[in-house]
Amino acid sequence: MKGVILSINPKATIIDITHEITAQDVDAGAFLLNCSYRYFPEGTIHVAIVDPGVGTSRKILAVQSDRYFFIASDNQILKYIFNSSETLIVIELLNKEFFLKEISRTFQGRDIFAPVAAHLSNGVGIEQFGFETKHYDRGNIDQPIISDAGITGKIIYCDKFGNLITNIPEKLISKSISLIQIGSTRINSLSNSYSEVGAGQPLAIIGSSGYLEIAVRNGNANRQLLPDRGSKVIIEFQPDIAKDS
Amino acid sequence: MKGVILSINPKATIIDITHEITAQDVDAGAFLLNCSYRYFPEGTIHVAIVDPGVGTSRKILAVQSDRYFFIASDNQILKYIFNSSETLIVIELLNKEFFLKEISRTFQGRDIFAPVAAHLSNGVGIEQFGFETKHYDRGNIDQPIISDAGITGKIIYCDKFGNLITNIPEKLISKSISLIQIGSTRINSLSNSYSEVGAGQPLAIIGSSGYLEIAVRNGNANRQLLPDRGSKVIIEFQPDIAKDS
Amino acid sequence: MKGVILSINPKATIIDITHEITAQDVDAGAFLLNCSYRYFPEGTIHVAIVDPGVGTSRKILAVQSDRYFFIASDNQILKYIFNSSETLIVIELLNKEFFLKEISRTFQGRDIFAPVAAHLSNGVGIEQFGFETKHYDRGNIDQPIISDAGITGKIIYCDKFGNLITNIPEKLISKSISLIQIGSTRINSLSNSYSEVGAGQPLAIIGSSGYLEIAVRNGNANRQLLPDRGSKVIIEFQPDIAKDS
Repeated sequence: MKGVILSINPKATIIDITHEITAQDVDAGAFLLNCSYRYFPEGTIHVAIVDPGVGTSRKILAVQSDRYFFIASDNQILKYIFNSSETLIVIELLNKEFFLKEISRTFQGRDIFAPVAAHLSNGVGIEQFGFETKHYDRGNIDQPIISDAGITGKIIYCDKFGNLITNIPEKLISKSISLIQIGSTRINSLSNSYSEVGAGQPLAIIGSSGYLEIAVRNGNANRQLLPDRGSKVIIEFQPDIAKDS
Repeated sequence: MKGVILSINPKATIIDITHEITAQDVDAGAFLLNCSYRYFPEGTIHVAIVDPGVGTSRKILAVQSDRYFFIASDNQILKYIFNSSETLIVIELLNKEFFLKEISRTFQGRDIFAPVAAHLSNGVGIEQFGFETKHYDRGNIDQPIISDAGITGKIIYCDKFGNLITNIPEKLISKSISLIQIGSTRINSLSNSYSEVGAGQPLAIIGSSGYLEIAVRNGNANRQLLPDRGSKVIIEFQPDIAKDS
Repeated sequence: MKGVILSINPKATIIDITHEITAQDVDAGAFLLNCSYRYFPEGTIHVAIVDPGVGTSRKILAVQSDRYFFIASDNQILKYIFNSSETLIVIELLNKEFFLKEISRTFQGRDIFAPVAAHLSNGVGIEQFGFETKHYDRGNIDQPIISDAGITGKIIYCDKFGNLITNIPEKLISKSISLIQIGSTRINSLSNSYSEVGAGQPLAIIGSSGYLEIAVRNGNANRQLLPDRGSKVIIEFQPDIAKDS
């Protein structure tokens, strides 16, 4: 893919965000893209490929948001962008003039995504690559359930250190916590750094994604706590004493 | 190696094709290089290092083909280029003026390959690095055996998804297939996409390399079919009914 | 991190030395950085992050040496630079003007290291990022013990091929060797290339780092010899016959 991009735009700056997404794990790709894309310069073209459906009839999309471009299959990998408040133009890639001449059955990244990204970086307008469409799969973002007593969220991603990232954003944690529970593991408070607990102990912390994470100091929460993705994470707030008095 | 290259040519664009070749697996390196090099811009310098023979007396070569340069040990890693129809100039690297001053016993990539590549990218002529040689190891490309009844090829590479790539190019598959067999696995036809079979089922498809591949939908053919590299892949054609009538 | 850097300096050249350091293994990071940094162009900014103490009160440092800059936590990852003969300016990073606006608890690499590196590459003077400090952890470099009869060193790093790198530099090996011992493995001489021993046999060689390495030809010394890091490596010199006569 990089060879194809540089053949079309020799001055392109190409950055790998990650090659560590497990094959077929579109959800993990969607999450990592959402954590990363805002940190790139305006005008960056994000090419996202985790694609079990390659070669089927699912569409390939080019998307323009307020500050960025995205090229991806219509397989929910852009669900966080589609469900954001950004103004979007969504184009279905159809104009073969901008594809490689020979399209393989299994590597559209090289044959379609890469050349389109390169032409886009050369200044070709996004509308030239196909037609605008409203018919694409926006997907759903799992939202945590909130009550006066607490929040029920779930694990949505495990990073390479084994930290378990939940779908509970910092801003929802407005009250004092009395308990954070994942499986049979019970954590009594939010930490400000890994060092607040002993080595090998579990902790809860607001991670770099802005979401609650479950970690094990100097350890691997994924291997030690053995959650499933989708495992419930329950926060219980301290009872509101002011109300009782 | 990248530090060395940028010290000599600060404007060099450096791309990693892969660091995932298993140590010592020259054959896999040769295959992946052959799949990739044509997609890069004309004049690209391909540096290929999979090198169990580092420190022995085997030569180091700089090769100019119709559109590219290659720097590699004389260990068959360039066998696909040597056995192609391209016009080649093959130079044995001998001119120490272009090497690092201190040459280690174990990391010629850093001490010889990288500085030569950088000087080449700066416009030093390839003949300056040593002398042209006809004495290098062209290697052999295993060709499939073709008959009226079918083709017998073999597995030559396994990619990181576990897909098994054979040495049978698309152009040889001119007739209708009645059976594709690998070990005890029997596949009845060629697929156009992974989705043509059920999850966990094996399939045969022309992959992005242009060769027949054996895959498992949403799975890992290497782990599920347990072939050896070199395992036979047999294609049987449908009998030519026209001939019989 | 790369997105942050390019947002501040779009012309930055960004090179990954490695992402293969085991989590929390500061010693391995220190060793690899020491093997690599001298090969980069003058003025290169080396950003080193292996950081179990993220979020604690340990300092973050920017260091100027004779030819390079370094940005790292005050956790001994720069111990080889601190214990070298280079003239150093060490600044504690304090000026939040050059950090990202929102600092997460767990990813200072993205929020502090990357933007400071980018501003430094844009020409901001190192003294602008905070105050010079003499209070940082220089760490200790384990030196081998030398006698007339031999050298006792230890394994300090295992590379991705399983080669075991010791802390015994080539220059200390001034006499003829009669034995090199690691655990129960006994090697009788220093090799000049891997090919001097049979496949599967252990050997000792001066590696690309300039230090004595223990390897297994076409094998993996780490898996076959099962040392601990810190395992002793003993060199015995041949008796000085001239003295006896």
